[in-house]
Amino acid sequence: MERFENSAEYSWHVCMSALMLKDYANEAINIDRVIKMLLIHDIGEIDAGDTIIYSSETAELKSAEAAGVARLFAMLPEGMSAEFLALWNEFEAGETPDARYAKAIDCVPPLLHNLHGNGHSWRAHDISQEKILGLNARIGLGSTELWHVIRKQLEEAFEQGILNKAL
Amino acid sequence: MERFENSAEYSWHVCMSALMLKDYANEAINIDRVIKMLLIHDIGEIDAGDTIIYSSETAELKSAEAAGVARLFAMLPEGMSAEFLALWNEFEAGETPDARYAKAIDCVPPLLHNLHGNGHSWRAHDISQEKILGLNARIGLGSTELWHVIRKQLEEAFEQGILNKAL
Repeated sequence: MERFENSAEYSWHVCMSALMLKDYANEAINIDRVIKMLLIHDIGEIDAGDTIIYSSETAELKSAEAAGVARLFAMLPEGMSAEFLALWNEFEAGETPDARYAKAIDCVPPLLHNLHGNGHSWRAHDISQEKILGLNARIGLGSTELWHVIRKQLEEAFEQGILNKAL
Repeated sequence: MERFENSAEYSWHVCMSALMLKDYANEAINIDRVIKMLLIHDIGEIDAGDTIIYSSETAELKSAEAAGVARLFAMLPEGMSAEFLALWNEFEAGETPDARYAKAIDCVPPLLHNLHGNGHSWRAHDISQEKILGLNARIGLGSTELWHVIRKQLEEAFEQGILNKAL
């Protein structure tokens, strides 16, 4: 099918990845909280739209997502709304073991899509090797082991010209 | 977008539904197990294909799904593979509180799609009112309260001819 993965498909994909890779987390994590965090982490995109990660972390887009999250969670019973909002903020801040691992895994599926798809979205959006390595280094904050393997694959792909060196 | 929801989108959708409706479960449930169960419950469709529930519960299709599940889970580390397979079988059997609730919620999103979409897939597949009420009665096994509300909506829709009475 010639289209990009949407946020719902992606959310399932990233939850499955987190579940399968949980033993590689750097710190002790609560995988159930991580899954819940990842189920809801992109819900702001219903209102704000979906952008690739390299251009999504602007103040403007983050505030549109936060407004979307607030609008949607306000429809839920109060306790649930507060719980989900706290989880969403915890993910965004990325300062707890669960959030560090969740944010690490959030980088993995799009990176693998690109690695095995000749860097298609990196090319389309003109993302430099430096940016690719820079942003994805956050994988190491959640899982040193995973980042070690992926970094090596990335460098080999750059070396072999599988990804355009001039990117 | 003029297409049906696929299994990945649906799996996210049903996990979110389970999370939001958890307080309506008949029995004490472990929502984290339910979410895990629902994340993986349709994975057999990668090999077996996706069919509407009214025609999916045949011995042939179930065995194709079971074969797909066995093939995919065999790629995982042993402990994880055994855990996921046990969860998948528990869901299929539907005999524990977690599985009863999960199977109940598994009926809800497609039913709401049909209720709010003039019964499109029920019409397309020629599903009778009797079959609709019969299959979805399993919602009551997981949540009497939810089935009470949904059954009423279904009967009103049949009454008002929103769904074709002659279905």
